[in-house]
Amino acid sequence: MNKTQNYSKVIVTGCAGFIGSNLTDSLLSRGIEVVGIDNFSTGRREFLKSALGNQKFSMHELDLQEAERLPTIFEDADFVFHLAANADVRNGASRPRRDLEQNTLVTHNVLEAMRLSGVTRIGFSSTGSIYGESTISPTPEDAPFPVQTSLYGASKLACEGLIQAYCETFEMQSWIFRFVSILGPRYSHGHVFDFYKQLEEHPDYLTVLGNGHQRKSYLHVSDCIRAIYIAIEKADERVNIFNLGVDGTCEVRDSVNWICKELEIEPRIDYGTDSRGWIGDNPLIHLAIDKIGALGWKPENSIKEGIESTVEYLSKNEWLLL
Amino acid sequence: MNKTQNYSKVIVTGCAGFIGSNLTDSLLSRGIEVVGIDNFSTGRREFLKSALGNQKFSMHELDLQEAERLPTIFEDADFVFHLAANADVRNGASRPRRDLEQNTLVTHNVLEAMRLSGVTRIGFSSTGSIYGESTISPTPEDAPFPVQTSLYGASKLACEGLIQAYCETFEMQSWIFRFVSILGPRYSHGHVFDFYKQLEEHPDYLTVLGNGHQRKSYLHVSDCIRAIYIAIEKADERVNIFNLGVDGTCEVRDSVNWICKELEIEPRIDYGTDSRGWIGDNPLIHLAIDKIGALGWKPENSIKEGIESTVEYLSKNEWLLL
Repeated sequence: MNKTQNYSKVIVTGCAGFIGSNLTDSLLSRGIEVVGIDNFSTGRREFLKSALGNQKFSMHELDLQEAERLPTIFEDADFVFHLAANADVRNGASRPRRDLEQNTLVTHNVLEAMRLSGVTRIGFSSTGSIYGESTISPTPEDAPFPVQTSLYGASKLACEGLIQAYCETFEMQSWIFRFVSILGPRYSHGHVFDFYKQLEEHPDYLTVLGNGHQRKSYLHVSDCIRAIYIAIEKADERVNIFNLGVDGTCEVRDSVNWICKELEIEPRIDYGTDSRGWIGDNPLIHLAIDKIGALGWKPENSIKEGIESTVEYLSKNEWLLL
Repeated sequence: MNKTQNYSKVIVTGCAGFIGSNLTDSLLSRGIEVVGIDNFSTGRREFLKSALGNQKFSMHELDLQEAERLPTIFEDADFVFHLAANADVRNGASRPRRDLEQNTLVTHNVLEAMRLSGVTRIGFSSTGSIYGESTISPTPEDAPFPVQTSLYGASKLACEGLIQAYCETFEMQSWIFRFVSILGPRYSHGHVFDFYKQLEEHPDYLTVLGNGHQRKSYLHVSDCIRAIYIAIEKADERVNIFNLGVDGTCEVRDSVNWICKELEIEPRIDYGTDSRGWIGDNPLIHLAIDKIGALGWKPENSIKEGIESTVEYLSKNEWLLL
């Protein structure tokens, strides 16, 4: 019933972003018509090069904070992938209203446009940050009710709540994905990016926020998109929540080593002393993936492979560093 | 250190509401200066009659959606009790933006005003609705990560997340109270009110939404306020979350019987067939109160006593029904 291959028209918000553009290309390769929306605040036109050559792709350049145009755009769509977001976890404190506006309010606008246009299915990119500092690791979807530790996590929590309430109130259906950090082609922000950029500028040393023992978990974008399809095709509750990550973690120190090895350099590494990189940084985001695993999915790329392929991608796309 | 009796000036938003006006009177009786804020959308001037005669009380009539004036009002305050909210759980579907605006955005405005004026402590009225349809009953504060079932619950979840993230990011401290329904003097909306009003209009019959087997838990407002003081004085984490309720539940049918007995009438009762009163109504809100109990608090009024005293209050204050 709920097979993505039966969809004829799908909306992708944030279509010019890292995950959004990869998903757009993937949907188009399945013959599905994609209507993309992006305001190009962090999205890149270059990521849509292939999509824009495809007759099944159309694109609206607009900010989702301007809600008026959305219901018309959404008409006749089978599904909305809502990936547009402020994904800058780190600088919440300097602009405390930004996550509220770009995540919470925008998600409300998307839900309202769905309600007004009669679209009933939504896929949403949430985050493992939503678990705050979970006492359980790896953290399952039904972990103890978490306490938020960042404005970013709080805004994604608010989005999830809105989506769930709309599902119950207006008979919609949702697939909510709580991601670890995603790596791979078109990756363009986050700590591997920061390290790469630093090493491009000064290959002889690298400054790391925090003591480097922060544990992280990374998923390759191709594994991520495969999981999204599987979840939508196999899970059919009103609200379907899935962690997406990998078994295991690495330390920031491991990732530094893999990056340096891939780049064939041996810089001096200046670690900080704090167990966190910044206020609101979680010392550990390690998600249990048993629930999505039970649907027959498992990641094909290890964390190390994800980091290596990302460094390779960045070295071939240095325009991203500008 | 954190004794409310050491506070000299306290802000109460929603000071003209049911709980807000009771809290205002209580703070004034302790000699604390109270600066009240209300837009009188659902608050009642009559509830402030006593407070307005007290020199330690001052009042700003304004809507918290207009944030500009707040930082000046908040200056030099020791504590903000943020009780202002849209508390109409039932009609979320007809105005899906209201909970977002009046709860989530307003709470953000309050937090921003605190940040700008340097006030670091907040008490917040959340709700047991936030647990959705919990699989655990009575539901503890660290219940499994819930799925939201109402726009009201979702908005309160968003508020909690914002408060927690502000505490972590800007070194604030919070006391978050997840209430069951509250009863007692100045109670002016909810199902006891609806039943009373119906029976005033037609004492010979009563129409009940749902089959009457919905279980509910009610706390008397005086017990509620006593619990708030105890929590603030004894709990000193960065984020302190407490369920406030009573041990045990009643069925809507019990409450109907107690109300009729108190009114000395025997109407025909027309029950519905659904196990819920309305879309988004939880069949059961029963909160575990062990955490607040461990601080030495327990309710002095049973559910039955709470309902009886509420009916008595309403019968002496029939202007509320108009």
